Amino acid sequence: MSKTKEFAEKLSKLNIENMYENDFYWTWDKTDDELAAIFTVADALRDLREQNKSTKIFDSGLGISIFRDNSTRTRFSFASACNLLGLEVQDLDEKKSQIAHGETVRETANMVSFMADVIGIRDDMFIGEGHKYQKTFMDAVTEGHEDGVLEQKPTLVNLQCDVDHPTQSMADLAHVIHYFGGVENLKGKKVAMTWAYSPSYGKPLSVPQGIIGLFTRFGMDVVLAHPEGYDVMGEVEEIAAANAEKSGGSYKKVNSMEEAFKDADIVYPKSWAPYAAMEKRTQLYQAGDQAGIDALEKELLANNAKFKDWTCTEELMSTTKDGKALYMHCLPADITGLSCEAGEVENSVFNRYIDPLYKEASYKPYIIAAMIFLAKVKDPVAALKALDDAEPRKKF
Amino acid sequence: MSKTKEFAEKLSKLNIENMYENDFYWTWDKTDDELAAIFTVADALRDLREQNKSTKIFDSGLGISIFRDNSTRTRFSFASACNLLGLEVQDLDEKKSQIAHGETVRETANMVSFMADVIGIRDDMFIGEGHKYQKTFMDAVTEGHEDGVLEQKPTLVNLQCDVDHPTQSMADLAHVIHYFGGVENLKGKKVAMTWAYSPSYGKPLSVPQGIIGLFTRFGMDVVLAHPEGYDVMGEVEEIAAANAEKSGGSYKKVNSMEEAFKDADIVYPKSWAPYAAMEKRTQLYQAGDQAGIDALEKELLANNAKFKDWTCTEELMSTTKDGKALYMHCLPADITGLSCEAGEVENSVFNRYIDPLYKEASYKPYIIAAMIFLAKVKDPVAALKALDDAEPRKKF
Amino acid sequence: MSKTKEFAEKLSKLNIENMYENDFYWTWDKTDDELAAIFTVADALRDLREQNKSTKIFDSGLGISIFRDNSTRTRFSFASACNLLGLEVQDLDEKKSQIAHGETVRETANMVSFMADVIGIRDDMFIGEGHKYQKTFMDAVTEGHEDGVLEQKPTLVNLQCDVDHPTQSMADLAHVIHYFGGVENLKGKKVAMTWAYSPSYGKPLSVPQGIIGLFTRFGMDVVLAHPEGYDVMGEVEEIAAANAEKSGGSYKKVNSMEEAFKDADIVYPKSWAPYAAMEKRTQLYQAGDQAGIDALEKELLANNAKFKDWTCTEELMSTTKDGKALYMHCLPADITGLSCEAGEVENSVFNRYIDPLYKEASYKPYIIAAMIFLAKVKDPVAALKALDDAEPRKKF
Repeated sequence: MSKTKEFAEKLSKLNIENMYENDFYWTWDKTDDELAAIFTVADALRDLREQNKSTKIFDSGLGISIFRDNSTRTRFSFASACNLLGLEVQDLDEKKSQIAHGETVRETANMVSFMADVIGIRDDMFIGEGHKYQKTFMDAVTEGHEDGVLEQKPTLVNLQCDVDHPTQSMADLAHVIHYFGGVENLKGKKVAMTWAYSPSYGKPLSVPQGIIGLFTRFGMDVVLAHPEGYDVMGEVEEIAAANAEKSGGSYKKVNSMEEAFKDADIVYPKSWAPYAAMEKRTQLYQAGDQAGIDALEKELLANNAKFKDWTCTEELMSTTKDGKALYMHCLPADITGLSCEAGEVENSVFNRYIDPLYKEASYKPYIIAAMIFLAKVKDPVAALKALDDAEPRKKF
Repeated sequence: MSKTKEFAEKLSKLNIENMYENDFYWTWDKTDDELAAIFTVADALRDLREQNKSTKIFDSGLGISIFRDNSTRTRFSFASACNLLGLEVQDLDEKKSQIAHGETVRETANMVSFMADVIGIRDDMFIGEGHKYQKTFMDAVTEGHEDGVLEQKPTLVNLQCDVDHPTQSMADLAHVIHYFGGVENLKGKKVAMTWAYSPSYGKPLSVPQGIIGLFTRFGMDVVLAHPEGYDVMGEVEEIAAANAEKSGGSYKKVNSMEEAFKDADIVYPKSWAPYAAMEKRTQLYQAGDQAGIDALEKELLANNAKFKDWTCTEELMSTTKDGKALYMHCLPADITGLSCEAGEVENSVFNRYIDPLYKEASYKPYIIAAMIFLAKVKDPVAALKALDDAEPRKKF
Repeated sequence: MSKTKEFAEKLSKLNIENMYENDFYWTWDKTDDELAAIFTVADALRDLREQNKSTKIFDSGLGISIFRDNSTRTRFSFASACNLLGLEVQDLDEKKSQIAHGETVRETANMVSFMADVIGIRDDMFIGEGHKYQKTFMDAVTEGHEDGVLEQKPTLVNLQCDVDHPTQSMADLAHVIHYFGGVENLKGKKVAMTWAYSPSYGKPLSVPQGIIGLFTRFGMDVVLAHPEGYDVMGEVEEIAAANAEKSGGSYKKVNSMEEAFKDADIVYPKSWAPYAAMEKRTQLYQAGDQAGIDALEKELLANNAKFKDWTCTEELMSTTKDGKALYMHCLPADITGLSCEAGEVENSVFNRYIDPLYKEASYKPYIIAAMIFLAKVKDPVAALKALDDAEPRKKF
């Protein structure tokens, strides 16, 4: 049996009936079977691409992408995923400087979605706003569909909000699963999701939140480490704790990078802004106070600078499991001595892990494509089998 | 018989032989049959999309869009229309700050059209320039085709010029036809195309001109209302008057919003700049006098502000036919108390009409697609039948 | 036999086995057979388009374009070529103001190439940097493919570097071949590649370099003319001289436009910046000295202005072979009395040659498509035959 047929077989045993026509906001909205389905379809699509087989399930259609924050990686991943499935991408170039009022979001949502099959949205910079924007947008197109404005209701792929970054955390986990030779080998592995110093800007919380909210579901021992004050959202910590309880893993928070790294199997040192500062930023933003935002940004970086010793060094790496934990990052990283004077990681560490880091990133287009596939294809098992039997992508 | 087959049947009775390989500048260039054909094909394409059937008539090809003014709605409508038919969109990002010299337009036209099937152009800000640009562009590609530079001559869809905005007025009329249950029900309906106060900027004339130039062809009683000085182009008024005469409707101009709204079946309150100011803007533009343009813009808004009472209130709406005229707008509207302090329409009126407004907008991609379809397909009747019989758009 | 079948026949006699999965940096990397293959496939694709036949060899896939310098013509040519073959274009919008460090290029290369079949790069402004960037990029994706990051290795089309501009010079030569009725008629033709005065900016050297590096391979007498100090890269001159020696043509350099034009069959008067200034620009760029770059640019234009008499006049044209040499330009040209007060060419000369100039440009999309075709199609002879036998591009 071909690899893709095996994946189809595996998929046929999962309960995924709620995925059809559904949206993807957060990993913790989804059942274990649903997540397993995404990993399985992602692997199948990758296998088909390796075999140069077509994975076009659409004859035409649009994927609309809305980036309310800069992006290269996710933008290309989304475009690649859409292309893989036969959708053309149309970018909505919104001015980033104004929070859209409810009515405006509703109007825009309908106006750009006439032929949309998928909507991908990144809105991650403002705590309390990102998810709300996505929800308002999707409520509007749902209503638009019910009212006959839109012939078909597009589905959402959350390309990063203020709460979760599911395409990142799922790609990261796909990498971990392959690295350790299967999801069954993750139990008991220690994961250090830790804050690290960055001189660049106050980064969103959705990556650490996404990681602790997802990795705790697989029986791993997840440690979140950060300096005092750099808390993430309490609701997500509660989800992480509950997940760990249920999966037979553990979740704990510490204020020491050393403690987190000790004997870790996986380390994910990455900067983010303190929750309190993020909340303040939202308030300033809503008040249209750009000077206040700029001042806050300076304050943030000054505060970051107190913790320059939170950096992933060779010395720290040597304290991990057998001195060779898997180093992870969502990229781009602030690399000490390469992209900045002092940053999240020493160049020699980063450099040793370039291959795994690129491999980690390479799962994202397949994860996004799998999310779309499962939301838009009525019988995904049959579809995978048919794709496996069909014509090559390049005709000659 | 399926709905699309019925549309094909209807189409077969219209005289549309001149549409093939032809351009779309203004609705008044087109015969009644040709306009009916566009409405019919638009309805058929919408029906096919509802049934999730493919409407790809091209295996490959490009739709080039040139927006010399900002656009979200029309941009996405054009992209959606192209995608629907199997064309990829390529945007030409022109600097908007210089009027291109004749020679340069000719060169650009050929350079971007090597694989173009369709050209969509918006150039609406300068009276006397917009249409001229489109004409120069199309003359150049026609010559380029004759001279063997271009293997095929692309066709034009006017996405708004200084004179007409046919994709808007046709989408508006499609909405009206469906709202009143058929084109045969439009006779005698009173339409109030009226100026309304806007604090934002001096808006183009092509929407009111497009509406009076088109709606007068269907036996309706069209009233154009505006404060003194806010005239539209005289040539278009003459066309409107001649149309009304021929269709058994009427056309008249008044300087009172109240008079226009009285017993109206349809109201379209929308801001535009005075014709004289528009002409002055063109002169300043040609002279490269940006300071002059900025000063004129201030003058314009100051003048607008004398007519803040030209606004669509609940009180005014209550004077329309049975107090429930169809409220129309090309969007985005300046909404009093929502997007501005004082604008074109009261929030409570706008809010009641959101559904019809979105529905109105939803016709535009289908109207554009129908224009392309009829210009590029040699036997559109056979094509519609074949699409109706063919494979679904989503394969699984 | 159809024209395309004849082209396929011709192709079958060429030794092109090294083209598959290979990159296109410079014409002088390629054998005579390989260049002949590109001209042949370009002609075949053009014939198929004339017949409205599909040339889609891909069912899906991406062409990534990276323009580190402005471009309209080449951008649309690349997009047209990709569309012709069934690839969607995705633009990478890089900030042009920073030379990317090695590591960053490597990261970017992998991150944007997950589904890429083709990479098109323009990086022409900095001597010693453009080719290096392309090479670094391609080394990175090759490594990425070997390491399992990328399922497939994309191939490169050089859309202009600091050394060569092969899609331009090949399109130019395709034009010349057709103009003179076959490649066999080029022997002994005199080509004047000459510098001309421009008031606009310090232009890249890759066009004159591309022309002398390519045209010398066909037995032509190539003369490079420029004022003292406006040298091109010595390495390319050596290649030109060696080519001429081998092909039975000649290559010589003069400091007189008159001498170059005398009895020329082809004239290509075009501005470029002095090599020494280009080197200085690179140094300033690497030092991040924008003020220095601006000062150098002024110096450059001041120096250019000493040679305002280097311009293509009717008088000069009358000294060419029978007074009617073929005038060539890569466009846009600086046209005296039209786009500037004094420039590369007199308006009356330019105007007489508009048709041939557009025709010249029209070969570029086909040349690019042919480069991609031969790099991605395993059996191009069979592919051409199959395309010729297949369905029309427009289905109705």
